Amino acid sequence: MADEAGAAKERKILVAVDESEESMYALTWCLKNVSVSSNSKDTLILLYVMPPRTVYTALDGTGYLFSSDIMATMQKYSNDVADCVIEKSKRMCREQVQDVKVETIIEHGDPRDAICQVAEKLHVDMLVMGSHGYGLIKRAFLGSVSNHCAQNVKCPVLIVKRPKASSGSS
Amino acid sequence: MADEAGAAKERKILVAVDESEESMYALTWCLKNVSVSSNSKDTLILLYVMPPRTVYTALDGTGYLFSSDIMATMQKYSNDVADCVIEKSKRMCREQVQDVKVETIIEHGDPRDAICQVAEKLHVDMLVMGSHGYGLIKRAFLGSVSNHCAQNVKCPVLIVKRPKASSGSS
Repeated sequence: MADEAGAAKERKILVAVDESEESMYALTWCLKNVSVSSNSKDTLILLYVMPPRTVYTALDGTGYLFSSDIMATMQKYSNDVADCVIEKSKRMCREQVQDVKVETIIEHGDPRDAICQVAEKLHVDMLVMGSHGYGLIKRAFLGSVSNHCAQNVKCPVLIVKRPKASSGSS
Repeated sequence: MADEAGAAKERKILVAVDESEESMYALTWCLKNVSVSSNSKDTLILLYVMPPRTVYTALDGTGYLFSSDIMATMQKYSNDVADCVIEKSKRMCREQVQDVKVETIIEHGDPRDAICQVAEKLHVDMLVMGSHGYGLIKRAFLGSVSNHCAQNVKCPVLIVKRPKASSGSS
């Protein structure tokens, strides 16, 4: 029973990243405090969750808001953001911890479900995420992603907040 | 801004412990995965929160449920449990990580408030806790302690669940 807590040799650490600064802070904190270079057997799995494609389809169904041109532009923009976040995250890993293995995953859908599903499927040893990721607007619709994941993922969950003092606002 | 994430040299890690097996699992997981021996500058602060004394007083006020004898017995029982949990936790720290500094704190009150207050007051670098601590009955009254702390504490919060497979129940 307690032996499982000791299986720390080859850890898979899932880090949910997005375009927020808080998510980048969470990754940095993880690299400096959890997956330090002395533990070189860690594999960091960077997960970015894109908005579901069905959202665009549904909106387009009104024949009002979005032309197919605009939808293509939005899709391209989403892809660009995903690539950009993943690239930035990989660069941060390389800069801060030299010998850590990094894998990347891009999923589509509700980030709450996608993060939980990937965590279960890959049997990760730990999930790391910022507490306020996914933006103010999305959060209003989705509820707190980190809350949901902390309640539903079976592995340990580390929720990292960006210190408020440095952002200068509440 | 991002520099603060790097201040990992002398870390204060607050671990909320209680009589649950899940809380002991969280401590073990922390010792094996976060505060490993290579990081000998960590100070682990073990916090146990006792039920508030006012609960007994209020109940006694009815003149019905509790005689002062029973109250004294309950108080003694609470103290014994606190000592026992703290001693067990300290022993686990010593057995698993030889060179970690350990401090202990016993507080009275609502664990949600007490944990947040201690985390803020001591400016800890991280809070570690089980997700289902504080027992079924108390949780029904208090709501999820870990949820509350994850939302209100400013430092990173690590929530560790005990694997369900080993406990054999939902």
